[in-house]
Amino acid sequence: MERNDSLKTGGGSDPAAGFSSGQGTSVERLAGGREFDLIRRFYAGQPLSPRADVRLGAGDDCAVVAGDGIVLSLDLSVEGVHFRRDWLKPFEIGYRATTASLSDLAAMAARPIGVLVSVAAHENDADDFAVELMRGVTAAVSAVGGVLLGGDLTRSLGPLVVDVVSVGEASSPITRSGALPGDEVWVTGQLGGSGAAVEKMLAGEAPEVSALERFRAPAARVAEARWLAETGCLTAMLDLSDGLGGDAGHLASASGVSVHIESKLLPIHAAARASGSMGNALRLALSGGEDYEICLTARTGCLQNHVDAFQDRFGIPLTRVGRVEAGEGAFLLDDNSQRRPLAGGFQHFRAEQ
Amino acid sequence: MERNDSLKTGGGSDPAAGFSSGQGTSVERLAGGREFDLIRRFYAGQPLSPRADVRLGAGDDCAVVAGDGIVLSLDLSVEGVHFRRDWLKPFEIGYRATTASLSDLAAMAARPIGVLVSVAAHENDADDFAVELMRGVTAAVSAVGGVLLGGDLTRSLGPLVVDVVSVGEASSPITRSGALPGDEVWVTGQLGGSGAAVEKMLAGEAPEVSALERFRAPAARVAEARWLAETGCLTAMLDLSDGLGGDAGHLASASGVSVHIESKLLPIHAAARASGSMGNALRLALSGGEDYEICLTARTGCLQNHVDAFQDRFGIPLTRVGRVEAGEGAFLLDDNSQRRPLAGGFQHFRAEQ
Repeated sequence: MERNDSLKTGGGSDPAAGFSSGQGTSVERLAGGREFDLIRRFYAGQPLSPRADVRLGAGDDCAVVAGDGIVLSLDLSVEGVHFRRDWLKPFEIGYRATTASLSDLAAMAARPIGVLVSVAAHENDADDFAVELMRGVTAAVSAVGGVLLGGDLTRSLGPLVVDVVSVGEASSPITRSGALPGDEVWVTGQLGGSGAAVEKMLAGEAPEVSALERFRAPAARVAEARWLAETGCLTAMLDLSDGLGGDAGHLASASGVSVHIESKLLPIHAAARASGSMGNALRLALSGGEDYEICLTARTGCLQNHVDAFQDRFGIPLTRVGRVEAGEGAFLLDDNSQRRPLAGGFQHFRAEQ
Repeated sequence: MERNDSLKTGGGSDPAAGFSSGQGTSVERLAGGREFDLIRRFYAGQPLSPRADVRLGAGDDCAVVAGDGIVLSLDLSVEGVHFRRDWLKPFEIGYRATTASLSDLAAMAARPIGVLVSVAAHENDADDFAVELMRGVTAAVSAVGGVLLGGDLTRSLGPLVVDVVSVGEASSPITRSGALPGDEVWVTGQLGGSGAAVEKMLAGEAPEVSALERFRAPAARVAEARWLAETGCLTAMLDLSDGLGGDAGHLASASGVSVHIESKLLPIHAAARASGSMGNALRLALSGGEDYEICLTARTGCLQNHVDAFQDRFGIPLTRVGRVEAGEGAFLLDDNSQRRPLAGGFQHFRAEQ
């Protein structure tokens, strides 16, 4: 092997070395030293083609990436808190955890490079279960053009834990803090589908098929967000990881403005609309953070010209749902133009559960 | 607020927004929406001075960093597997978890920029305990010149989980794969101190003070590794997260060479030497991955001239412990020049426990 090979893609060595197996005490080991075999299986199917933005992939102490501005986010998923095994297959657990993390890259209009993944698994799961979970991870990151860059695998005595670090590149990231009075507020897709599925499953009923799909395999809106950024219309953006009811307030706070959402404009998923009262449909649309849709602000009149092209290209709606004004806070205008604080409304809905 | 403020350091808004509180379902929430107050406390004491390498810190969906080559690693610590609460204070849990992650940056001679941290904590710990833990995180990253860049906080129904992503910059990282036959093998510091402390605590005895210090607040050898890289002598490097007994084999495998360690050269910590037989001292020195020392290979005769300056500067030894040859595998030469496979020897020691 040559001496000056330190920057080759993929490390040229065993990827198991790059997916660390933890901190080296015997207590944390999986029985029989199985972890290295397992880690090799994680990388099966990983594309081997070199990428200019991955200077060093799996196979060393760290991954090394390059780009004008490297964008980083991480998202922790814990069994019993973020997911239940009786509702999801291992593949879906990995897919969803990765989408949750990649959604933050989308929110900045970043181009994904890859993910690093920490997994803490029970001894009993450190085999086909973990491999299936990692298949879900790589499927989700491949879907947005990224690769598995490394990770950490360890034994857990408690619930399964998956922590996904998303790594991307954005020379001009779109932040939460650029919204100005007069801007319009828009959202991608439909809201409340995933929440409607969860509501049904909690009640022991079968969810509507398209809602269940939104819950099991949500998409990170990476391509959509980058396309929207290229319109030049956007002033601020974030993903709806807390639901629009919470995140409208986060955007308002970060930008130093107030945000006003009109309930009649909200693109509520059919399954949420069918869930009972209009109040419940609104609650699902505003509190469901697991749709992983994107909320953005745009200069008045700019984005309307792009709505048809967006829908043609991505097969999901792009909907104006409100406006930005001076002041502070986030508010919901109901059908009678009655205004109430959105965070308060959201908390109130929550308290009703 | 100006429209074009998207690249300012710190995000200019509430840092709580950047330290995500999870994926937005009500089940994961800490009671009473306390998580945002808690996250603000995590950032208390964080330096506010702008850094050229942090384009966007806490306060948005992602952190954005810049550098010639961005180096990434992550390290997961799980209660009951990597740490016990009866042995460590919350500050120490955070400090150790962060050192474990930063040690991977050291292993590539990278310059730390900062960390992102995921924490899953019980409802009962989501207060002073979590704040103290994060004080330990920020102390460890500050010690190597980095900052807290963001993170994720969620509720756990099981053990406390801390996952630390280290982010650094290295235009010319030193990998594991550059060792050549004829090179010397060196290690920083002393080996086995942390393991000796753990052994005593497991037996219900009081550890030796300096060994306990190595266990409670280990240092990441970041400055040491960068200093060593500047000598121009190094051909490969990795941190001893699996202990020299395991990591010598990882280096050999990555470089396509064999590694030969001489037991009589090993800088064994006094507490490990005092732990009983020479066999037990060797076991602690070879299997203890929690010393977080660095192993490196160097061209013959190059590093010897720098040993005194290293020891004067850092107050720890720099010791030649073996050599690189053609072939494959890692081996231990005992005092009688008997050779045995190191991984086998290491496994053998482990099986005796």
